[in-house]
This record gives sequence, C-alpha cells and structure tokens, in this order.
Amino acid sequence: MSRKFYSKEHLHFLLYDVHHVEQLLKIDRFKDHDVSSFNLFLDATEDLCKEHFLPIFTEMDRNEPQVVNGRIKVHPNMRPIMRMLGDGGWISCGASYAHGGNQLPTTIMMATSFIMGCANYSVTAFPGLTMGAAHLIESFGSDALKHTYIPKMFSGEWQGTMALTEPGAGSSLTDVVTSATPTEEGYYLIKGQKIFISCGDSDAVDNVIHLMLARIEGSPAGTKGISLFVVPRERITENGLESNDVLTGGIFHKMGYMGAPIAHIIMGEHNNCRGYLVGEANKGLSYMFQMMNEARISVGLHATSISTAAYYAALQYTRERLQGRPVTEKDPLKPQIPIVQHADVRRMLLFQKSFVEAALSLELQCCIYEDIQKNTEGETSEKYKLMLELLTPIAKSWPAETSILSTSQAVQCLGGYGFTKDFPLEQYFRETRIHAIHEGTTAIHGMDLLGRKVMMGGGKAVMYLMQEVMGDIAQAKKYEHLKSYAEVLEQKLGQVQELTMKLFGVASKEGPVVFLSDATLYLELFGLLIGGWQWIKIGHVAAAKLLTNPNDKFLEAKATMVGYFFEYEIPKTEGLFKRLNSDTRITTVLDEEYLD
Amino acid sequence: MSRKFYSKEHLHFLLYDVHHVEQLLKIDRFKDHDVSSFNLFLDATEDLCKEHFLPIFTEMDRNEPQVVNGRIKVHPNMRPIMRMLGDGGWISCGASYAHGGNQLPTTIMMATSFIMGCANYSVTAFPGLTMGAAHLIESFGSDALKHTYIPKMFSGEWQGTMALTEPGAGSSLTDVVTSATPTEEGYYLIKGQKIFISCGDSDAVDNVIHLMLARIEGSPAGTKGISLFVVPRERITENGLESNDVLTGGIFHKMGYMGAPIAHIIMGEHNNCRGYLVGEANKGLSYMFQMMNEARISVGLHATSISTAAYYAALQYTRERLQGRPVTEKDPLKPQIPIVQHADVRRMLLFQKSFVEAALSLELQCCIYEDIQKNTEGETSEKYKLMLELLTPIAKSWPAETSILSTSQAVQCLGGYGFTKDFPLEQYFRETRIHAIHEGTTAIHGMDLLGRKVMMGGGKAVMYLMQEVMGDIAQAKKYEHLKSYAEVLEQKLGQVQELTMKLFGVASKEGPVVFLSDATLYLELFGLLIGGWQWIKIGHVAAAKLLTNPNDKFLEAKATMVGYFFEYEIPKTEGLFKRLNSDTRITTVLDEEYLD
Repeated sequence: MSRKFYSKEHLHFLLYDVHHVEQLLKIDRFKDHDVSSFNLFLDATEDLCKEHFLPIFTEMDRNEPQVVNGRIKVHPNMRPIMRMLGDGGWISCGASYAHGGNQLPTTIMMATSFIMGCANYSVTAFPGLTMGAAHLIESFGSDALKHTYIPKMFSGEWQGTMALTEPGAGSSLTDVVTSATPTEEGYYLIKGQKIFISCGDSDAVDNVIHLMLARIEGSPAGTKGISLFVVPRERITENGLESNDVLTGGIFHKMGYMGAPIAHIIMGEHNNCRGYLVGEANKGLSYMFQMMNEARISVGLHATSISTAAYYAALQYTRERLQGRPVTEKDPLKPQIPIVQHADVRRMLLFQKSFVEAALSLELQCCIYEDIQKNTEGETSEKYKLMLELLTPIAKSWPAETSILSTSQAVQCLGGYGFTKDFPLEQYFRETRIHAIHEGTTAIHGMDLLGRKVMMGGGKAVMYLMQEVMGDIAQAKKYEHLKSYAEVLEQKLGQVQELTMKLFGVASKEGPVVFLSDATLYLELFGLLIGGWQWIKIGHVAAAKLLTNPNDKFLEAKATMVGYFFEYEIPKTEGLFKRLNSDTRITTVLDEEYLD
Repeated sequence: MSRKFYSKEHLHFLLYDVHHVEQLLKIDRFKDHDVSSFNLFLDATEDLCKEHFLPIFTEMDRNEPQVVNGRIKVHPNMRPIMRMLGDGGWISCGASYAHGGNQLPTTIMMATSFIMGCANYSVTAFPGLTMGAAHLIESFGSDALKHTYIPKMFSGEWQGTMALTEPGAGSSLTDVVTSATPTEEGYYLIKGQKIFISCGDSDAVDNVIHLMLARIEGSPAGTKGISLFVVPRERITENGLESNDVLTGGIFHKMGYMGAPIAHIIMGEHNNCRGYLVGEANKGLSYMFQMMNEARISVGLHATSISTAAYYAALQYTRERLQGRPVTEKDPLKPQIPIVQHADVRRMLLFQKSFVEAALSLELQCCIYEDIQKNTEGETSEKYKLMLELLTPIAKSWPAETSILSTSQAVQCLGGYGFTKDFPLEQYFRETRIHAIHEGTTAIHGMDLLGRKVMMGGGKAVMYLMQEVMGDIAQAKKYEHLKSYAEVLEQKLGQVQELTMKLFGVASKEGPVVFLSDATLYLELFGLLIGGWQWIKIGHVAAAKLLTNPNDKFLEAKATMVGYFFEYEIPKTEGLFKRLNSDTRITTVLDEEYLD
C-alpha cells in the first residue's frame, strides 16, 4: 500500500516551526530526548503504519468482530500488532522511566497516534485505550496495582479500557449504579453492567483491565459518590489468570470503525467479580477526568486523522479522474481534464485541507500545553492548565463535528464512486461519525465551554488564551497578505467577548436554561475562530520562513489556506453571531406536542 | 411495525391547505378524480408501506443484493411487491388512460412516492425508475414501443431504468461512447458499457428495459450526437423472451440503500444487442431530460422522505430515553427526564422538522407546477414551466445536502445508540448520502442555477417566481408573529438580486470560470431562502386556518417552525452573502501543488 495517508511535511512543520516542540527539551523529564530521537520515533511509526495498519484498513471493516464462545474475536492481526506496539515502546512511550516508559512528551506520543489514526483508526483504539488506562493507574493507583497491571499493559499483552457508560447512565454519570461492596480482604465485589466499552473484550490480548466507575455502598448520591476501580477480566492468581466473573454480554454492531469492538460487559453475575480501588473512595470522577481529558484531545485528533486520510484519498482521485472540460471549452473533441481543475472540486479540497491542517495544529497546541502544565509549577503550570481546560471542549468538538462535513466532501469529490466500497471514502465517512458522540456529545462540550470554561479561574483562562492569540495576530499583521485576516480575527474576538457578556446577562435575567440553550452554537462559533487563530499562527510562521526559503511551495501554500479559511469558513461565524445575539427564545419555550 | 415514519397530517395539510391540489381537478386530464379518490390512494399507500415496505427496511440493508449465475439476486419480497405495485396501479397511476394509466396528477403520484420513501427508500427505487422509464416511452416512443413495453412495466413484471453513466463519462454526458449501429431491420446494434445503473438488473422482474443513451455512428460529437434507445435485457420474440446480449458485469457495493442494486451492464459482447430508437436520432438528451427533471424532483423528495423517517425515529427515542436532569436541578436523587426536554435536543429536533416539512412543501410545489405546465397552454404553461425549471436544481440539491445534516442530527439525538445498528438512524444517515451525488452532483446544479436558470427566459423565470414569493410575503405580513420574518425574507431576496447582478458583472469582467466558481454556495443560499419562502407560505396558511380552529396544536406548531427556521437557519445566509460578495479569488487562481 503506498497511498499517501497524511502529510509528514505538515506534521513536522507544526511540531518544530509552529509549536516548537523542542522547547520541551528544557523540561527535566524530557532531557534525554532530542529532535532526532523524536523524528526516529515518528518515522518508525510511519513504517509500522504502512506495513501493518493500512493494509488491513478495509478488511477490518468488512469482517466485523463477533462473539465466539463468550469472547470477542477481532482481526487476527490485532494480536501481533499489540505485541509490536508493546515491544516497540508505543504503548509505554509517554510513561515514566520508573514504570518502564520512555518519558516522551505527550505531544510526540500524540503525533504518533495521529499517524496511526490516519492509517487505521480502529487499530489505534486498542493501544490508545490501553495507554490511557495505564496512565491512570500510574497517576493514582497503589504500588501494588502499578506493579500488577502496568507492565503487561505496556507490553501489549493486556488491553486497557475506560468503563463509564451504563444502560441507564449515558451522558449522565451522576446516575452510575454499578455497585462496589467492600470485603475484609481489601478488594470490592463489583456488580453491574457497562455498555459501549471500546475494546471491552477481545482475543487480541490475554486480559482486559477495566478502569471502571462504580458506587461504593453507602456513598453519597450523584457524582460525589463515584469511585474508580481496576476490574480485570481475568484475576491474577498464583496459578496464573483466572476468571474474574466479568462476562461479555455482547457487542454492539455499529456503522463504522468496525475493527474495534464495543462491548457490553456484565460484572458479578456470580457475585465473584473483584475490583480494586484506585486512589481514594468517592474521588473516581476526578481521577477519570485525567483520562477523559486526554481522551477528548485524542478524539479531536482522530476526527482529524480520519479526515486527513480521506483528504489525501480524495486528492489522489481528483488528480487522476478525467471528467468534463473547462467551463470555457465548448469543443467536445478536446480531451477531458482531471477534475481537480474544476473550481468547485478545488473548493471542496481546500475546505478539507484547511480544516485538517488547522485542526492538527490545534491538537498539537493542546498537547504542548499539557506537557508544560504537567511538568512545571506555579503560575506557569496554572496558565497552561487553564488554557488547556478552555481549549479542550473545542479541540474535541470542532474537529469531531467538522470531520463529518469534511469526510462527506471527500466522498463528494469522487461522485458515484465515493458512495461505493471500491474506494475508502465511504468508510472514512462512516468511521468519523462516532467522534461527535463519544467522550461527551457536542452538546455536553458546548455546555462545558459556556457554562464552566469561559469563566474558569475568574475569567483568567480566557485572558491567558487571548494573550496568546493577540500575540499571533500582532505577528501576522506584519505581513501584507495576512493583515486583513488578522484584523478580521481580532474584530470577531471582540464580538465574542461582547456576546459572552450579553449571554451572562441572559443568565442572570432568564436563568441558566435559557443561558445554555444555544451553547452548542456558541461552541461552533468559538471553534471556527480558534481554527482561524491556528491559521493566523501558521500563516505568520510560514511567511517568516518563506523569507529565507523563497519559492518554497509548501510554505507558499499556507498563505492560500489562510485565505481560503478566512474567505469561506470564518464568514460562517456571521450567522452564528446573529442567532446567538437574538433575544427570541424557541427551544426553551417549546410546547412538546408541536414536535409531533 | 407501528412506528411513525411520516406525518399524514402534514402531508394532507400541504396538499390541500397550502398547495390546493384540488385546483388541478379543473384540468381536463384529471376531471374523473376528486379529493376522496386522492385520499383513498394515499391511504392505500400507507397501508401497503406498513405491511410490506417498513418490515423489510433493515433486512434489505443487512442482506445486500449479490450476483448469482449472472443475475442480480435481490430481497425475495421484491418480486411480490413489484406485482402489488403493478396490480394496485401505483406504477401506472400517472399515465394516460390510453396506456393503461389512471391519469392521476404528478402531485399525488409523488405524494405516494414520498410515503413509500419514508417507509423504505430502496424498495421505492424499483417502481420509481420503472415509472420514469415508461413515461419516457409514453412521451416519445413509437406505438410499437409503447405497445411492446409499457404494459409489462406498468404491471410490475418488467423493470425500467435510466442508463446514462459510463466509466469514462460520469457527470459529463458529452463523453458518452456507447455506440449504436443502424441495421437494415430497423433496430440498432448497441455496444458499450454502463455503470451505476440503479435496478439495472434483478431477479424481482422478468425483464429489464433500459432507456439508454448511445451515439449513432457518424453522429456529431458532444451532446448533439446522443440518441435515446430502448434496450431490453431480454428481447421479445414469438417464442417468448430471449437474451438480448445485455450482460450484468457486476454490482457496486455501496454504503447505503443497499436493497436496490446498482449494476454495471455490458451491451453487445457478442454483437447481438438490439436497441430501438426512441423518437428522432440525436435528440436523446432532450428526451432524457424529461425523465431527469422528474428524477431530480424525486431525489429531493426522497432526501426529504429519508430525513422524515429519521426525524420520527429520533423523536420517539428522545421522548422515551431518560437521561440527565434539568440544568437547574442539582439533586441527583430526582428522577431523570426524557431527553426531549433538553434545549439542545429540541434544537436538533426542530432543525430536522423545520427542514423536512419545508422541503416536502417545496417538492409538492414543484409537482403542482409540473401538473399545471404539462396540462395547460400558452402563457400559463410557460410561466409554470419556467418556475419549475428554476426551482428544479434547488428542489434537488437543497434537500439532498441538508438531509446529510438532518439525518446526522437524528443520529446525534440517540447518542451512542445512534451509531449502532440497534436503531435505524445510522441506516438513514448512510442511505441519504447518495442524494447529493446521483441525478447530477450538487456542483452541477449550482452551475445550472447560476449559469442557466436565473437568466432563463430573459429573467422571466425569476420574475414569475418572485411574484409568487411576494404574494406569500404580503399574506404573511398580515400576522403579527410572521411580519418580521416576512420582512427578513423580502430584504434578503433583494440582496440576492443585487448579488446576482454583481455576479453577472463578474462574468463579463473576469469570465465564466470565476463567475461560476462559487455556484454551489449560491445554490445553498438560494435553497435556504426558498426554504424560508415555504415557511412563510405555510405560516400564513396555518395562521389563517387557526382563526377558525383556535387552539389547534398542529396549526399552532407551524408558527414555531417558522420561528425556528428564521432564527436558526436563515441566519446561515449571512456568511454565504459575505463570501459570494467577496472579490477575493482563491479556487480559480490556485496552484495545484499547494494541495499536496
């Protein structure tokens, strides 16, 4: 398989020129690394993807996992792939030396995950969840838990999961009812059911380690009574692995990313399911948020990775497919032209490219913030933490929502063929649809942004972020071709601030229901402007570099992308401002019978 | 199966209150009908759908057609269903008495097709294509062709198709190369290949009658040398049916509407495929346009029907699914509420409902225009023909594009379940994706609208349509709750006229390539405003009727829908105006290497 599935050049440009990942080398934790070790790891990832991930992209879709004798059977290559990911250090790369890791920055770890997602998102889910679950044990678990579980997870022998969702508690974690009964031996007896557990069971691994939310008997109601447990599928005994009374109730058949199973699991049917408390009782949700916040960045990243792969597949097709003639050519005997020459096809391609390049930049930006906040202290740490928290709902949802449109335009570039299974586009379109749903639906992130994040730290999160953005605007204004766009962004950021103030006025006058009723649209608006920020940033970096690298097509292209984004995408904010500034209430005063 | 899949009340309201389909009864062709005969037929359609279409909706998706011994095997129920549709008069209903039809207005025929599409779009494709192909023979074929083919097509024994697309000529019909060699016996020998032929072969029928575009040897190049042929899969001889050298080369596996096969067919492998010229040589494209224009309305209608079914499935779920509590409720012991009570879920539902109801109204509006233009003469006929021509690209593409978003929001309403095959939403999302592609991609309709239709008849088409719209605006202004929205529409229509003038200036200054470069966005803008027109129209009709039917929830609801559409959808025109009025060129000056 030799088709292009991502742009190495753009990834490196973002890492080194735009976000200066090398700045992290000054941090003690990362001091053993250097740019060339980063690049070696990235190159190894690309090789792995070409050899092992991409070739089974279609197969994994056509041969959905099935339950066979109570165990979920996945693609046979997943077992060797998990070992390779373990042996090659991909699963452990971000962990501490003390736990067998390589202390790579999150930014580089996520860059490898991006490459993997471009090649095959389903495969990527297995190590991604294992990594997240292991990091959670690393951060909050006892030494015994770390010792028992982390090595086998990092080696790819055992799968990790995040087990939150229940049949009666989807988005509402308040309503988790899985119970944990303390025993004298120190472990808890777990009873309940979890649904939609990604990689919740599979024959690619010898064990599955669930990081599970449950309620210890007698705990307070609501989220304050939720604890975090390690619940292994197989219990570790002196005689080896033994059933821990965790049953696979079934798998959910779904429309996309078929290769990764989503399981229904049942704990404690025989009252013999042991769970091991992580950290303190009743603090489960706050622990889980570490994994969830990472997972949210990862969701945005993978909405981007799928859309990136779709873009390059569409681009290749539009360059090869001959169809039609220039609008001005009336002679039917003249040869047909590649469809990439049609203006509307280019518009569709530029939409995709301008989205995926800015979205990747945003995700890496968040990763850098994460690396800084985790490895510094005091005000610096607080500043980056606040900015990361503010950006997280946007970094999750803007790519997740836009990827639906982006992969759809990729399908459209192929016309009828886009709808068929002869090309991978329809699969990308199906796969990416999950991202606006899992790790919190878009609506939840809208409420998180408007209801919590914009006022976080007494407004400090927004203040810090605006300083960053204004810095990039100032840089961009130095270049003639960027100046007007930088001014547009500046002006619109001012309008967002006015809008936000207005909405806080609504909150006090009309209450929180009305205040939050269009939070999803507020999130969409914010997302577009954050996308615009990334382009302004990329734009001035490319412009500066172009001074010493004249005629470099790669750098020149960035100016065109800025232009596209500000000419075609940023105008979409106009309608959103219009609606969000309106005082007419529709959804909050609706008579439900009107929906009949 | 008892789930609601469309709103009978809304359909009847549109037919009788909004569009006054009874006005057609004054036309001689329709004089034997009355409202009760229309309703009987509509009711019979609903019964048929409940009993036969809806129950196999999922099955048809899970058991894709396959080629078995050179014949495409479809769902076994399709054969009896085609006979029922034949015997019950559904396939022939719009045809003349002379050809065994029932002379029903197109409007009623399309209303039945809408109901069918809501129940099962795949099934609907079989009779729909047969109907269209038979009407083409009826309009342009010789008596011999009519006599030979029409009865068996109307009885549902033979399938009809439209066979245009070729491997090297997708959107570009200019490049059709299938050849037709005249013979002394009067028939032509056909040689070539066609792809993406919906229902191009199946074991549900005894024969397939292709209405096929081909080029008679020696004809002029381009579209002026294309002729229309009847090419049966089996030739009709004294001894019954005999192979006509039409082979099934394969089927395309696709992402949605799996139940209806899309075939690759090969004609004349053994130089023995006979085709029969329809009408005059080299006029094929103009004949085909009759079917294509009908088919385009049908595509818009079915994008609407799929989205309608998705809406009602989503609505039902949101009323049953308990999740979360009001934003103001902090007590986790209080019961969870149905998610339909959350403002953002309502926003998603109102988006879908406001789209599907306006889109259905638009399609029926077009059908009424079609019925009037076909059955009147002189200026009246010209007026309705021009308005229909102008509306066709919008009636095709606005619903086709919006249905992608609408079914996506329906998926979103179900959260994780929306992504699974436990519910029908993901299937609707996959199925409707074809509509922006087949019968001309959205880009082609954009160019048709801006490049041809807005200046059609020297601008008369637009003038006639604006008179209609202004009439509705005037009516709406009489009602306090509609007045401001009517004014917004009026103002925006003025802006569209200014924009159009500006774009014609661009055409003369910068040429047709630049002029048409954003035609897709122009189409999107026009579509939103036409949607707004339908709501203004529905709004004033409902308001008037409410005066004599106070507290009628169904009628009251329409005012809320108008409000939603003008508060949330019409603002999207702002960004489109912004872009379309910009003088900055991006796509037309692009260096292709920038796309790497």
